[in-house]
Amino acid sequence: MTEVELIELLTRNIPRHKGDLKIGIGDDCSVIRAGKKDILISCDSLVEDIHFKRKWASWDVWGAKIAAAALSDIAAKGGKPCYAWVNLSIPKNVSAKQTQTFYNGLLKILKKFKTTIAGGNITKSPKGFSAILTVWGEIASGKAMLRDKAKGGDTVYVSGVLGKNDFVKSPHIKLGQWLVKKGCRCAIDVSDGLLKDLGHIAKASKVKIVLNAEKLPHEGPLKKALTRGEDYVLAFTGRLPYSNRYHMVGEVKKGSSCVQVVDSKGNLLSFPNSGFDHRITG
Amino acid sequence: MTEVELIELLTRNIPRHKGDLKIGIGDDCSVIRAGKKDILISCDSLVEDIHFKRKWASWDVWGAKIAAAALSDIAAKGGKPCYAWVNLSIPKNVSAKQTQTFYNGLLKILKKFKTTIAGGNITKSPKGFSAILTVWGEIASGKAMLRDKAKGGDTVYVSGVLGKNDFVKSPHIKLGQWLVKKGCRCAIDVSDGLLKDLGHIAKASKVKIVLNAEKLPHEGPLKKALTRGEDYVLAFTGRLPYSNRYHMVGEVKKGSSCVQVVDSKGNLLSFPNSGFDHRITG
Repeated sequence: MTEVELIELLTRNIPRHKGDLKIGIGDDCSVIRAGKKDILISCDSLVEDIHFKRKWASWDVWGAKIAAAALSDIAAKGGKPCYAWVNLSIPKNVSAKQTQTFYNGLLKILKKFKTTIAGGNITKSPKGFSAILTVWGEIASGKAMLRDKAKGGDTVYVSGVLGKNDFVKSPHIKLGQWLVKKGCRCAIDVSDGLLKDLGHIAKASKVKIVLNAEKLPHEGPLKKALTRGEDYVLAFTGRLPYSNRYHMVGEVKKGSSCVQVVDSKGNLLSFPNSGFDHRITG
Repeated sequence: MTEVELIELLTRNIPRHKGDLKIGIGDDCSVIRAGKKDILISCDSLVEDIHFKRKWASWDVWGAKIAAAALSDIAAKGGKPCYAWVNLSIPKNVSAKQTQTFYNGLLKILKKFKTTIAGGNITKSPKGFSAILTVWGEIASGKAMLRDKAKGGDTVYVSGVLGKNDFVKSPHIKLGQWLVKKGCRCAIDVSDGLLKDLGHIAKASKVKIVLNAEKLPHEGPLKKALTRGEDYVLAFTGRLPYSNRYHMVGEVKKGSSCVQVVDSKGNLLSFPNSGFDHRITG
């Protein structure tokens, strides 16, 4: 069973919103009304030998990676990150020193965005280091960028080059906040590949998103750039002023919930099996 | 290095409170000001072969256990639980069906306390099932029961029998809320053994807590009942009316930060190495 199928099985009777919970399960970032503010809660997990291998980089990189991933969800909503809770499971073959290096990598990113660690847990792990980071962000009530706000006639933008897999680059917190000020209502961060992530917007907004292949800023093969995750750039829709902060890459049309890529002649390009859907259980 | 030593190493430069963060790292439950309410955030982790073995009980019991543990931290503050985020890491040898059984055990406890799952993650695990649960609770601003509010002259109470290790019993949410109404200012849930948990109150409040051995409701040997965790009863101090909801077990005195147990003749009983402090890293 894949991740998506298992989540569907487990959560099918759980409401997506309820009372002060404006956005719940099914989004990477919850939105909860709290007086004049909305609180944004994002959880991310990082498991050794599933999401990373320790020989690929030093421990501070993995700490930075999970911090960047969790903050990126706050950036996509346009929020200001404030607090974080760090849960670590540590196997015998990871030392206190290595754990400290991980923690310091994580702290460095959090500090850059004035995010204070407010709690968490440390336990032993039977095998493999793992970390779960929960981040609390804030935004003025009703201002969070959401997946269901794309409208026919909107332009589609991305905030950086795709396919770099540059997972420790700074999350686009400042840009997210700027977009909200400019009236942007719809955004997502690219963590599972642009096609899959824009697919969430197309589905939630019930629109067709058409991307122009030649306008997509990318490194390496286009297919890889569109279907690999962990770019942590923002993708968003609206009618925004010209800016060198982002690229216009396509348009939103009325129609069925789908994402299409066309070449300069208008021919439809095909990218089967786009985006990650990890197999979880047998 | 033990859990306590490692946490000390990692978090020594992290502020305990800051701005709207009234209670941060160092407590089992964070308290964050949000308008007229305070938000309570508690994280708990449950790792297979560290905290439980699957052969000990069916999967729904382990789901219920982590839900009860996280809600118990909200109960100790006197709050109302509202939302939860569930992070699961699932190894190959746990099926979708078993995962669903776990999830249903967890959901049953959450539903009982009207707590909605608002998000989370599911990933693969290299070995062993693990779950991290983050719970959001709410309480009127300034009303949360805290560890540093015990005062000389207070009575010490516990809300149930110690040593039962009855970890799937309902968390004492209703009692916590009732205690707040009665003016109780200081509480903790017994998750690491009464002596260790009251030690947190004694240290934070800079008081001496003296327990009367013959008044302590317990099952099995007294030492075990005082030093084993996972009872999830509440321990609290104050001057409360008589009630059959709790037992008077001792008193708070001015003095050094410590917890003592005396017998009926006033003789000091000794309980070395009281409470859990798990060894984590080499």
